[in-house]
Amino acid sequence: MVQLTPNSSYGLTLRLKLPNQTGRLAQLTQAIADAGGNLEDVRLLERNRQWVTREITVDASSSEHAEEIIAAVKQVDQVVLLKAEDRTFRLHEGGKIEVTSRIAVRNQDDLAMAYTPGVGRVCKAIAADPERVYDLTVKQNMVAIVTDGSAVLGLGNLGPEGALPVMEGKALLFKEFAGIDAFPVCLATQDTDEIVETVKRIVPVFGGVNLEDISAPRCFEIEARLKAETDIPIFHDDQHGTAIVVLAALTNALKLVGKSFGDIRIVINGAGAAGVAIALLLQKAGAQNILLCDRQGILSRDRTDLNPQKQAFAVEESGQLADAMKNADVFLGVSAPGVVSVDMVKSMAADPIVFAMANPIPEIQPELVSGLVAVMATGRSDYPNQINNVLAFPGVFRGALDCRAKAMTTGMFLEAAHAIAALVTPDDLDAEHIIPSVFDPRVSQAVASAVQQAAREEGVARV
Amino acid sequence: MVQLTPNSSYGLTLRLKLPNQTGRLAQLTQAIADAGGNLEDVRLLERNRQWVTREITVDASSSEHAEEIIAAVKQVDQVVLLKAEDRTFRLHEGGKIEVTSRIAVRNQDDLAMAYTPGVGRVCKAIAADPERVYDLTVKQNMVAIVTDGSAVLGLGNLGPEGALPVMEGKALLFKEFAGIDAFPVCLATQDTDEIVETVKRIVPVFGGVNLEDISAPRCFEIEARLKAETDIPIFHDDQHGTAIVVLAALTNALKLVGKSFGDIRIVINGAGAAGVAIALLLQKAGAQNILLCDRQGILSRDRTDLNPQKQAFAVEESGQLADAMKNADVFLGVSAPGVVSVDMVKSMAADPIVFAMANPIPEIQPELVSGLVAVMATGRSDYPNQINNVLAFPGVFRGALDCRAKAMTTGMFLEAAHAIAALVTPDDLDAEHIIPSVFDPRVSQAVASAVQQAAREEGVARV
Repeated sequence: MVQLTPNSSYGLTLRLKLPNQTGRLAQLTQAIADAGGNLEDVRLLERNRQWVTREITVDASSSEHAEEIIAAVKQVDQVVLLKAEDRTFRLHEGGKIEVTSRIAVRNQDDLAMAYTPGVGRVCKAIAADPERVYDLTVKQNMVAIVTDGSAVLGLGNLGPEGALPVMEGKALLFKEFAGIDAFPVCLATQDTDEIVETVKRIVPVFGGVNLEDISAPRCFEIEARLKAETDIPIFHDDQHGTAIVVLAALTNALKLVGKSFGDIRIVINGAGAAGVAIALLLQKAGAQNILLCDRQGILSRDRTDLNPQKQAFAVEESGQLADAMKNADVFLGVSAPGVVSVDMVKSMAADPIVFAMANPIPEIQPELVSGLVAVMATGRSDYPNQINNVLAFPGVFRGALDCRAKAMTTGMFLEAAHAIAALVTPDDLDAEHIIPSVFDPRVSQAVASAVQQAAREEGVARV
Repeated sequence: MVQLTPNSSYGLTLRLKLPNQTGRLAQLTQAIADAGGNLEDVRLLERNRQWVTREITVDASSSEHAEEIIAAVKQVDQVVLLKAEDRTFRLHEGGKIEVTSRIAVRNQDDLAMAYTPGVGRVCKAIAADPERVYDLTVKQNMVAIVTDGSAVLGLGNLGPEGALPVMEGKALLFKEFAGIDAFPVCLATQDTDEIVETVKRIVPVFGGVNLEDISAPRCFEIEARLKAETDIPIFHDDQHGTAIVVLAALTNALKLVGKSFGDIRIVINGAGAAGVAIALLLQKAGAQNILLCDRQGILSRDRTDLNPQKQAFAVEESGQLADAMKNADVFLGVSAPGVVSVDMVKSMAADPIVFAMANPIPEIQPELVSGLVAVMATGRSDYPNQINNVLAFPGVFRGALDCRAKAMTTGMFLEAAHAIAALVTPDDLDAEHIIPSVFDPRVSQAVASAVQQAAREEGVARV
């Protein structure tokens, strides 16, 4: 069993009463350490001659581990546990986003401009010239985050309510990383026609649509139809966000091993939304030898169970993932925990590149292949080279909104990837640093500029 | 022609360069006064020995009037107009609302709780127990402001984009007056079935729906069907918001003239959404003699052109508005500018009460009937007794959301009206003060408490 690192997603806030005696806190922290918990903050709340009340935050590695830590704390002599709170749940109470006013409403004058009667003139101006909706409303900066809850993270079909915390989180990232207003649209339908129809009906308020956590292959048709039937940028982040960041990281990884896209054998495991989009974008970047695999193995021409998206990548070769990996230069996993063995990695070509992006548990743990691979990346923040969509989607939409792009194009995705890759300078580039940090403040602006530039070149920019 | 008062909805911001000489500003302000403009603020931007640059805000009474003021300013000797800006349009640039984060995202720890991997546990908890969506997401405090743009203010069918500034304004009022998050849903359809269907599909994110500016009679069916087919409160503000505030104001006005609902003849002009809802709520409050009029006159049993909502109010009497008003105790106008004459008011019973609520120009100007009426109210902020929905809808939703009401009921509306009326104490009550100011900070809380109480009594409260 893989031991996960304690992290804040399983964090606890504990409120404790301890005797006001030297060494008591040391006893407590030792107990937490013995239980494998990671202590974060210790805050003094109250103190008298007899007692000290403290609030401490502790990271655990799983819900069970959190329970173990609580049990261990309770065992410490004379320590009273007043309250134990799950930090993640606490943070979600009441939701993570809000709708706020950009202007002050202090008096009748403000009201008369922002609402009736003043607003009437603004409404008439837009009705007379529909393009003005971009200047005079939130549309210019507003993205719909649309899901049907059918493929929430790696957790499956949780439905629209179950998906909402992810969509709120996404809205928060849009705002934090690119100043974009985004709003969750969680649909009580998983029917393709109804999803397309509904998005088209709510689209007047939005300058762009980010599709999210919609299962394959429906996501492909929904995206294609919305692209054809609306005049705003449509972006399925699970596809294109992932593809952009993978291309950026792989571009830099190839520099390290001195290989080029045209010469390498690439295995992609997982032929859902992400896998297909990665394959498409890598082809545009020059890759010629891509083996896409699903649970049944290589997508080969002799298979009869492939949907059209998979068929497009069917090859002469056939076999299982292990067969595909023989002599592969690159493995890209967007699949499931632990499906890659050490032997498979050993069967790869010289200087293999492995991106094991299944979340939270990768296709193979980095520790197991340390020394065997030239470059390793995962989807996790506690290992080097985190492949995280947040490097792409905020900047991609920032660029698309700023030039009022009519659509998203593959050219825009390629340029976004190149912009991300270029932020790692030759001096900084090494096996543990092929991609910028998600908190690198340059990323979203660099991506936005590249996307705008591409949009102009491709004639989809409106301003 | 009625002379309107200058107000900020037609306000200008003028940037001007004047010679740095005593008396120049006086000259300028005199010119503005002569043109009928109301000076608001004067701000000094820059000064040297020769010149002063100032920014001034001036209210006008119409767009034409604003142009006249600009022309007059240009005429002033040696004054250079650097920039003239429409304040209302300026304020609308980029929209009036934004979606912001309620939590900080400073580092990987925050990200791991607010987004992946932490968010996954929250999603699973909701999928396992759908009621938790109220605790762990924005749903508990989020209202959809739904319109099809078919009846925007008094301006008619401006479409979804043309309606958006009103919906943003509404969202802003929800936040300012009741701390509610509200989001504009402007639909690219005016088909009743499609509207109902679309709202039902987006409803997972919302704790309530405020229907807005949807034309009658479709609004009645849309509301009725959404009430039947969803389990959250549905409120058509043009109907019930207006009805609540009218009932509140009329309750207090009747105290002043010593009449009671059971004994009075009430004329309502305008048989659209607002007129019908007012009539219904007044009936519940005890009114027995209501004459509803539309453009064709009294809704009488011998008419064959009435929709079901109008038919419900058909009476034996027939005739025009002027006939209805004879001996009426109360006139309630939700119709059109200037349709009531002084003679009509003179034909009313003793101590007539006139609410002329057409916006921005009332059914009859208060100046024309001063001394003839016991109580006068309008929809305008520049006369006493402003009948403004903002007194009702924020508190109504606050109350409904706080007790997780399954529905809105007439009982909740009655109690909301009584709560608003009760805020004007017997000592404060007079002909020019029958209703609290929209900026009275007690209103939304008083309404919310009353609505919650009624919801509990009627068994629609879930918590």
